[in-house]
Amino acid sequence: MELRVDPGKTRRLVQEIFEHSGLSEEEAFTVSENLILAEMRGIRSHGLVQVENYSQKMREGKINPRSKITLLREGKGNAVFDADHAPGSVAGKFAMRHTIRKARQNGVAVSTVRNGTHFGYAAYYAMQALDDDMIGLAFTSTGAAVAPFGGYERLVGTNPICVAVPAGKARPVVFDAATSNVAFNKAFFAYTEGRSIPDDWGLDADGKATTNPADIVTGGGALLPFGGYKGYGLGFIVFIITTLLSGTSVLEDCKETAAENYMKVSYNFAAIDISQFTDVAEFKRNLDISVERIKSSKRIAGIDEIFVPGEIESNNYEKSQREGLILYDGVSNSISRTLDELGIPMSLSDCSFKKDF
Amino acid sequence: MELRVDPGKTRRLVQEIFEHSGLSEEEAFTVSENLILAEMRGIRSHGLVQVENYSQKMREGKINPRSKITLLREGKGNAVFDADHAPGSVAGKFAMRHTIRKARQNGVAVSTVRNGTHFGYAAYYAMQALDDDMIGLAFTSTGAAVAPFGGYERLVGTNPICVAVPAGKARPVVFDAATSNVAFNKAFFAYTEGRSIPDDWGLDADGKATTNPADIVTGGGALLPFGGYKGYGLGFIVFIITTLLSGTSVLEDCKETAAENYMKVSYNFAAIDISQFTDVAEFKRNLDISVERIKSSKRIAGIDEIFVPGEIESNNYEKSQREGLILYDGVSNSISRTLDELGIPMSLSDCSFKKDF
Repeated sequence: MELRVDPGKTRRLVQEIFEHSGLSEEEAFTVSENLILAEMRGIRSHGLVQVENYSQKMREGKINPRSKITLLREGKGNAVFDADHAPGSVAGKFAMRHTIRKARQNGVAVSTVRNGTHFGYAAYYAMQALDDDMIGLAFTSTGAAVAPFGGYERLVGTNPICVAVPAGKARPVVFDAATSNVAFNKAFFAYTEGRSIPDDWGLDADGKATTNPADIVTGGGALLPFGGYKGYGLGFIVFIITTLLSGTSVLEDCKETAAENYMKVSYNFAAIDISQFTDVAEFKRNLDISVERIKSSKRIAGIDEIFVPGEIESNNYEKSQREGLILYDGVSNSISRTLDELGIPMSLSDCSFKKDF
Repeated sequence: MELRVDPGKTRRLVQEIFEHSGLSEEEAFTVSENLILAEMRGIRSHGLVQVENYSQKMREGKINPRSKITLLREGKGNAVFDADHAPGSVAGKFAMRHTIRKARQNGVAVSTVRNGTHFGYAAYYAMQALDDDMIGLAFTSTGAAVAPFGGYERLVGTNPICVAVPAGKARPVVFDAATSNVAFNKAFFAYTEGRSIPDDWGLDADGKATTNPADIVTGGGALLPFGGYKGYGLGFIVFIITTLLSGTSVLEDCKETAAENYMKVSYNFAAIDISQFTDVAEFKRNLDISVERIKSSKRIAGIDEIFVPGEIESNNYEKSQREGLILYDGVSNSISRTLDELGIPMSLSDCSFKKDF
């Protein structure tokens, strides 16, 4: 059974869950906003499926609900933060806002964040720069999941790269991709649904190609980088500019350990103030023309439309606004369960989507 | 027949060629240094094979031998240059040096360069940052050669990404890759040598997969991005941060036209001063450990060694120092031809490699 819910009402309900899980009102708002944005843009692996997981981790202390984010170092165009294991969206939003302010002063700025937890939806941070007519960039390390090119141990994270660029009439260009061939959750979803997977997603624990997601999810196998050695190289660079550049640990520490309650993940944010390079209106007009030129170009047989980065997600977002969000059983059940556990007298049926006629 | 030459002597000879092609001594040194570095690191497509091409373009004025690079705009952490169609390495080295100085003041800096010509070897610029204990980044747009994902018109450049990171005992990590599946010259070399190519390199002029490099090189076909939509997205982002962010033209202008003598390419350089983020010695030690961990990890059957980005090129460089450079007929003939045309009384045989015993 599927449930069609109103994005705004659902966000409010999710905020309530996080307030009951220990966050302040403002923090709970931020985390709910991050998850709803992902869900609305069709990135379900980073959307409402995380509500129960995040709420449990907050209550277990694996995400710190009483975090105090501190500025460790700062230069004119750079900063290093300690997130104190805050929810990813709380630390990320804060650091990105700081980065944008610094870019306004300096043309560009870069911040790193150590002691983070699960990043959440990367585009949420990069897109913060759009209203300021800046290019926003966001990177995170993740738990080790990807094999180096030629190897089969899990050593590199899925370490995504996200870049958001403001356009004029066109929707913003938002590139957002893991440096693994697929996100870990894609293999996980296939595993829970009993589906087989293409043989280029990952390797089993003996380093052999596999179509069985269990080999990767529970069997100790590893994901493969996207595009062979190039994706591996980019993933390693993301590790360097997040983990090493925030002054934290080395490769194998990047996982949840018994000794340390927290995941050791680090972030990197950057902002580029377009107005300090060129005329913003002209920049946007040129981007619009470029987008239009790509979209109107000749298509391979069988392809209905050519997309620019982030366009499919913009379409999803607008559709979610028009038609609401469809929640499948797994997600709606996990949210209902969490409401029960926390004793919140609300229900997803309070969030049902009603079309204005 | 192959010729084994001494890298230093050959660089000196190439400098001579460029001085006779119109460059100042310092500029000729820079261009020769760029090409020799590429050749020594095994990136032959950007090495000495370019000597004749560059020399001709300088004499034809397609590369401006009397360029005056100007600073158009500047903020605390950013700058925009007009390269006045200088040789790529002259403009690039200049802009990167400026970027490094600004990063020293501001923690990070980004510069764009408009009205560039062929970039040359990207790692040459990114690696300039290494001696300053900075992370260096270099990007260039190129002539349109790559199809957008789902399309088959040449619209995006091969738009490479290069990042260089200083290590401690390990060699520097240098990621340097086109966002196309292969560099255009790989298809070109296959074409001149009459070899067929894998069917994922490019499409023919009708948008069909091809194993005939002529379809791409002369037939109007296009290269494919690496890693499908992800490589396409990254290539488009590189276009944005080079071309649009330097205030130049839109997509389809990015080619050599009859109306304009010059290629319209743009660059982007960035530098990140590690010392303003974290302790440099610790950063390098952590990078060394990470490199070692990857290199000693389990290998897929049939794989002899796992490499980190730039390591194969470092090996090539060291081998070139020990054993000299091997020049094949095509390259040595083109250099000899250029020496003749310019009336330079030198010969590649003056550069032959002699081992010290």
